[in-house]
Amino acid sequence: MKSNATFFLDEGDLPFPQGSLKKRPQSKRITDLYRSIRAETERLAAPLSAEDQTIQSMPDASPTKWHRAHTTWFFETFILEPFLQGYSVFDPAFNYLFNSYYEAIGPRHPRPSRGLLSRPGMDRVADYRVHVDRAMECLLETADRPILDLIILGLNHEQQHQELLLTDIKHAFSRSPLFPIYKAAPSPPNVTLPPKIDWWPIKSGLYPIGHDASEKGFAFDNEMPRHTVFLEDYALADRPVSNGEYRAFMDDGGYERPEFWLSDGWAIVQAEHWDAPAYWRREGSAWQVFTLHGMQDVRDDEPVCHVSYFEAAAYALWAGCRLPREHEWEVAARRFHSDHEHTHSQHFHPASLTSSRQKAIRQDVWEWTASAYAPYPGYHAEAGALGEYNGKFMINQMVLRGRSCATPVGHDRITYRNFFPPQARWQFSGFRLAKDR
Amino acid sequence: MKSNATFFLDEGDLPFPQGSLKKRPQSKRITDLYRSIRAETERLAAPLSAEDQTIQSMPDASPTKWHRAHTTWFFETFILEPFLQGYSVFDPAFNYLFNSYYEAIGPRHPRPSRGLLSRPGMDRVADYRVHVDRAMECLLETADRPILDLIILGLNHEQQHQELLLTDIKHAFSRSPLFPIYKAAPSPPNVTLPPKIDWWPIKSGLYPIGHDASEKGFAFDNEMPRHTVFLEDYALADRPVSNGEYRAFMDDGGYERPEFWLSDGWAIVQAEHWDAPAYWRREGSAWQVFTLHGMQDVRDDEPVCHVSYFEAAAYALWAGCRLPREHEWEVAARRFHSDHEHTHSQHFHPASLTSSRQKAIRQDVWEWTASAYAPYPGYHAEAGALGEYNGKFMINQMVLRGRSCATPVGHDRITYRNFFPPQARWQFSGFRLAKDR
Amino acid sequence: MKSNATFFLDEGDLPFPQGSLKKRPQSKRITDLYRSIRAETERLAAPLSAEDQTIQSMPDASPTKWHRAHTTWFFETFILEPFLQGYSVFDPAFNYLFNSYYEAIGPRHPRPSRGLLSRPGMDRVADYRVHVDRAMECLLETADRPILDLIILGLNHEQQHQELLLTDIKHAFSRSPLFPIYKAAPSPPNVTLPPKIDWWPIKSGLYPIGHDASEKGFAFDNEMPRHTVFLEDYALADRPVSNGEYRAFMDDGGYERPEFWLSDGWAIVQAEHWDAPAYWRREGSAWQVFTLHGMQDVRDDEPVCHVSYFEAAAYALWAGCRLPREHEWEVAARRFHSDHEHTHSQHFHPASLTSSRQKAIRQDVWEWTASAYAPYPGYHAEAGALGEYNGKFMINQMVLRGRSCATPVGHDRITYRNFFPPQARWQFSGFRLAKDR
Amino acid sequence: MKSNATFFLDEGDLPFPQGSLKKRPQSKRITDLYRSIRAETERLAAPLSAEDQTIQSMPDASPTKWHRAHTTWFFETFILEPFLQGYSVFDPAFNYLFNSYYEAIGPRHPRPSRGLLSRPGMDRVADYRVHVDRAMECLLETADRPILDLIILGLNHEQQHQELLLTDIKHAFSRSPLFPIYKAAPSPPNVTLPPKIDWWPIKSGLYPIGHDASEKGFAFDNEMPRHTVFLEDYALADRPVSNGEYRAFMDDGGYERPEFWLSDGWAIVQAEHWDAPAYWRREGSAWQVFTLHGMQDVRDDEPVCHVSYFEAAAYALWAGCRLPREHEWEVAARRFHSDHEHTHSQHFHPASLTSSRQKAIRQDVWEWTASAYAPYPGYHAEAGALGEYNGKFMINQMVLRGRSCATPVGHDRITYRNFFPPQARWQFSGFRLAKDR
Repeated sequence: MKSNATFFLDEGDLPFPQGSLKKRPQSKRITDLYRSIRAETERLAAPLSAEDQTIQSMPDASPTKWHRAHTTWFFETFILEPFLQGYSVFDPAFNYLFNSYYEAIGPRHPRPSRGLLSRPGMDRVADYRVHVDRAMECLLETADRPILDLIILGLNHEQQHQELLLTDIKHAFSRSPLFPIYKAAPSPPNVTLPPKIDWWPIKSGLYPIGHDASEKGFAFDNEMPRHTVFLEDYALADRPVSNGEYRAFMDDGGYERPEFWLSDGWAIVQAEHWDAPAYWRREGSAWQVFTLHGMQDVRDDEPVCHVSYFEAAAYALWAGCRLPREHEWEVAARRFHSDHEHTHSQHFHPASLTSSRQKAIRQDVWEWTASAYAPYPGYHAEAGALGEYNGKFMINQMVLRGRSCATPVGHDRITYRNFFPPQARWQFSGFRLAKDR
Repeated sequence: MKSNATFFLDEGDLPFPQGSLKKRPQSKRITDLYRSIRAETERLAAPLSAEDQTIQSMPDASPTKWHRAHTTWFFETFILEPFLQGYSVFDPAFNYLFNSYYEAIGPRHPRPSRGLLSRPGMDRVADYRVHVDRAMECLLETADRPILDLIILGLNHEQQHQELLLTDIKHAFSRSPLFPIYKAAPSPPNVTLPPKIDWWPIKSGLYPIGHDASEKGFAFDNEMPRHTVFLEDYALADRPVSNGEYRAFMDDGGYERPEFWLSDGWAIVQAEHWDAPAYWRREGSAWQVFTLHGMQDVRDDEPVCHVSYFEAAAYALWAGCRLPREHEWEVAARRFHSDHEHTHSQHFHPASLTSSRQKAIRQDVWEWTASAYAPYPGYHAEAGALGEYNGKFMINQMVLRGRSCATPVGHDRITYRNFFPPQARWQFSGFRLAKDR
Repeated sequence: MKSNATFFLDEGDLPFPQGSLKKRPQSKRITDLYRSIRAETERLAAPLSAEDQTIQSMPDASPTKWHRAHTTWFFETFILEPFLQGYSVFDPAFNYLFNSYYEAIGPRHPRPSRGLLSRPGMDRVADYRVHVDRAMECLLETADRPILDLIILGLNHEQQHQELLLTDIKHAFSRSPLFPIYKAAPSPPNVTLPPKIDWWPIKSGLYPIGHDASEKGFAFDNEMPRHTVFLEDYALADRPVSNGEYRAFMDDGGYERPEFWLSDGWAIVQAEHWDAPAYWRREGSAWQVFTLHGMQDVRDDEPVCHVSYFEAAAYALWAGCRLPREHEWEVAARRFHSDHEHTHSQHFHPASLTSSRQKAIRQDVWEWTASAYAPYPGYHAEAGALGEYNGKFMINQMVLRGRSCATPVGHDRITYRNFFPPQARWQFSGFRLAKDR
Repeated sequence: MKSNATFFLDEGDLPFPQGSLKKRPQSKRITDLYRSIRAETERLAAPLSAEDQTIQSMPDASPTKWHRAHTTWFFETFILEPFLQGYSVFDPAFNYLFNSYYEAIGPRHPRPSRGLLSRPGMDRVADYRVHVDRAMECLLETADRPILDLIILGLNHEQQHQELLLTDIKHAFSRSPLFPIYKAAPSPPNVTLPPKIDWWPIKSGLYPIGHDASEKGFAFDNEMPRHTVFLEDYALADRPVSNGEYRAFMDDGGYERPEFWLSDGWAIVQAEHWDAPAYWRREGSAWQVFTLHGMQDVRDDEPVCHVSYFEAAAYALWAGCRLPREHEWEVAARRFHSDHEHTHSQHFHPASLTSSRQKAIRQDVWEWTASAYAPYPGYHAEAGALGEYNGKFMINQMVLRGRSCATPVGHDRITYRNFFPPQARWQFSGFRLAKDR
């Protein structure tokens, strides 16, 4: 991540109603932000038992307890140790246990074995969080930039793990024959099929892409530098593809017809016997889907979710369209964006399409784009351990844009670049169509 | 297992001081036995947190919580459901979750995924145990043979899982960089090297082998029927091989010299980089070993433990001896056996050799024999699900005899046949030498 | 293998009509034997093209070319190099390429990569054989025991590879969609169902087992020493199980009913989707089988072949019988044996049961026994590389007795112990039933 | 691939001296082209024995024999069957055996099992080629567009396989302990270190990219349509990185320092123990490299070759530069390109840098670019089987530009897009540096 010119602090950083904070000094406002984001992690973990917080259902996913500790380790390692004089490390062993992937920090516990860590227990992790929070409060009293920039980074980092905490426990619960419920479902609205897709037209020309470092507000280094691209004429759908539309693809033999699939995708379809999005299961002639509210009927009015890039691309070809490139997504988002009621606090299955139809390009599912994750022209990773934050993952991944129903409020941005391998399905990932004009 | 003629109830079944029970009616005495064995499982699990009880460190090992539930399911499925009128199953889903391997009972949760079961939690498993225990108490009030036979079987089954509970959590803890301590170590005696091995001589001839069904006392079906074998002259060592002796093998290049190894064993040595027993690790020029009391120095006076059959056989060849066949072990045990103070309640690393030297062939480590696990002549597995208890595992496993420091008091027998694949090392497995005369 | 007292030379060693040889000095007779066995290998390889001789269809199987070279390397390494003064090694690289598993000889080409050896080509392997044969002829002019013993061992070794050459190319051809024909089929006799099984009764008592080293004739070290066993009453079927009988097992759901299967066997049935013996494939409502004569209809009058130990054991349990232990097989063979016309030169699918019904216990399929492969009491492997011949494989394998249609004439013996892992199916392996009386 | 407007035939298509062909009718010239390209395949295969042509050393590589048959099948399937009336298929089984990946054509032999196909033999493959060539000659007498376009496609396809034939046999030979020589080495020039890199500057602006369909000459569909991109200022090195330069990276701990590596690359470095380019091996303190001329000393004046994308990217980061994007490569190539003597007929290890220094951006190694392989804006794969030629591979691969010492004369183009997964090393792949200005 790039610290200079990046973490300019401003209301834009604050995801919550900000009126009351406006007059306070900057470090005070960041203290409030720190408290609220740290508390949100604990709020998300609260419904989960000690056992729930310990299990790991695949190497890509981490235990809840691990997320809680790792985000704390991030503050301890990158902020308290270098900058808070006299800080006493909570437990020296944690540097090995809760380093995720920072080679520069040293060796670490192997990722696929995070689920074997019964110790430290849930309670000791809570103690760890309190220990670090207390020290952070001390530091915040006097901290100035660039330390404040690092704290903002740490908070954005924690927000990313808040979403992962949810996707990872969803995956774990989906593997249990008991299909546990993370949170009771709200009473659902009636199914109302979304109107036909409208197309947002964009004319060919030169467009700016990425975050402008001179602007206010936080962005990750991979969103920078702002640069220029030339785009041909194109159009972008005004909403993601719905379950109902996706079922038409399935009913037309989508999962049995290789002509729609990338070669690697078709290999997975056959090896893994994919015949529907992840978490769907046939129940007689109908489909059910496992959600954080438990097993539910698939709703035709929701955006299709938990599909891989391969499925998104196959659907697009079947539909005679294509997936948008990330630049196309961003340019259209700038033009047609209007914010919408963020629905995630209500439920964790993607919100219905109809309810937010008129509102925004950003939706309740991350949207696969046709762009491989690559550095922007002029990008340079920072030196040192934090330079590993983004840059070293720029291979074999596709960019997703938007946000999901599990993205923390205020964490999304038009320039935000999420990224996952094309076969990944455990994120809240859907897609939107594009076409040439 | 074979129910008729097998589970004759008698003091022989009762592992605890039995004087006080002698005068009571049989079912009352079995009730006491039931209570004490069930309580022992809970006593063994008590030092383990909810998180500890949930993890599974390899497919062969099961979570503590699972052992507690599975042994309960055994009583529910094989005794309460068929024999207690009006019994209400605690949770129908548990039949899927806690069936270990009984094909006749139906499909079951895949073994390698037991560590993904955060639910039911530790507390709900405790409730399950209480529910079943209450029903069992009711049944015991009126039960007669053959139900009492099945209960005795269920209790022996639970005792087997008590030992597995310990070996499995030991394996799990050994994978943690924190090396958790299950139980504080007693103050250890001074190291006193064991005297040289003496040899117990046996003359060639016909010998009876196995449990005599007409005798009192419980035995598993695989210990029967009693039959005759012809043995040539041989001699058996009067104690297992010690750590000190095993280190001489290591120092002589034991793990680098293929001439001592079975071909499959040598392949594992190279693939897994074995250079010492499991749980040993080099600490400078010394060796430490992970135990249920945490990391400790290797003691030369303890029997070598956590070695595979391959290592036992390689050592024997290096030493110019061989491993005993299981018949040879049993015949010598009958001849030279004298009971000894059972040490397991004191500590969970194998007891020192010297302390029990004069006592018995049975020791604090299971002892690999040179015999593949096979049915005795005349063996027939019972019809039905319980016929799966032993018979279907009679392939690719080697017999171990004796008992270990983790074996419940009273669970061992001279005719007892334990069995594991030749590469297994997570059991308390050592070995004793034999030679032709 | 054990050289002393073992390789006493006698007519018993000579597989071919021996009248003409009787009067010649021993080394001359062994020269003839050498020539005929070496020529037989080339005769078996002759129908195979350079490409056929190069491919390797699984790690367990070796290319034809490799068998031809390895058997030659055996003579070069164990006989010519130590005993023929001035012998010049054909190509020093061959010691690495064609050492099968002799750790004492040094490192060797990895077994699964034998199929990558395009060089040396077929013709150069032929040159190698000529080079070694010429040197062997020199040596044979003057050789005496114990060199002659080693030569006899080398010839028995080559005969073992003659059978493997056939089983391995059969496996390779079975993987080709073209189903190549190794040898044109003879005109087959009409199908005549075999008579019901008769049972050969054996009374309980002490019996000698194994090869007596003081007797004439060659035996491998694993057949020795002769020793005594005690057997209970039993009966052995007078012929192997037929395809027709095995189909009744299949029709009764044999491959879908776990109650007949060892646990490891049932796991393979499911993982590999076994539903018939190897090389069978459904053709509408009938079954065909791939043979060295190409694809043919399954004949009900032939012994079932290419079944694993697991299938043999499952069938036996279904039939209310069991598999014989290897001692039982040997004792019955001694009692009821009468030699029969060896059929292998006629065809390479197992001969019909009816044609040889009245003749012998030894048949045209190897017969799985219920005995794990283990050393006989008193067995000691030779020191040095040749000690690796048999001993180091005595784990995780089951003994097969008899011979097959692919066994070279004269290579079989009543005491012969063949051995393969219980899951192996690419050998000509069937089985015979036994029962307690 | 795109047939319309693409395969305009012209001298540009003809890789060989064309003077003599100029006056002949188009189909006649294509007949000559057909003959010369088909003959070139046979010339390349000629040094390889039947055994050499059969082996397959990894799933990504194919046997020589398979390449010869597959390219023939391409003409048979896509041209003769649909367009030559009365054409009789050589062998119906070949459609299954030699279909590479065309799902629309039907099922096919699994790729990793191509090395098990001893049949058809080398000679029968030769017959197949003659059979198809004769039929093609008939067709060529009367063929017109669009059939001629398809034939040109088939010839370009065959040229691609000519290069693969060489890379695949090189990989196979490298796995042999004998290190076979494909072709004797020419006498090598003295080592003359290349001059320092010069940088070709390019100014920011809009640039055309890709093949213009209205131009003469063949191009694959993935090179189209021509479109516009905006590039920032940059500079491109005037030659690839040399072995000598790469050794400086190695000497500086390049393979031990994670800070230079993409995360997936670092994982491979550790798992596969990479410490040098593929085919290099340490010989004391020096390095040797396996080539098609056998094992040779590594020359500091040659371009580094057989490196993965990961190694190229790590080197670039170490050198303070970056890899060029494919658009940058193409634009600089148009500006600075001047043709150079094609060296491949002389040798198959990459030509020395010095000899061609002044000449061209195109060199004797394929050059990794920083661009993921993706469709150009406006790209649509053809309908039908030939639409699978390129489009379905546009995921998880990186684009390489230029050509290699193994690329057939005349097969390269400035717009040519080669592509391989980032971990691939068995192609003749090197790289060139770029930097921002």
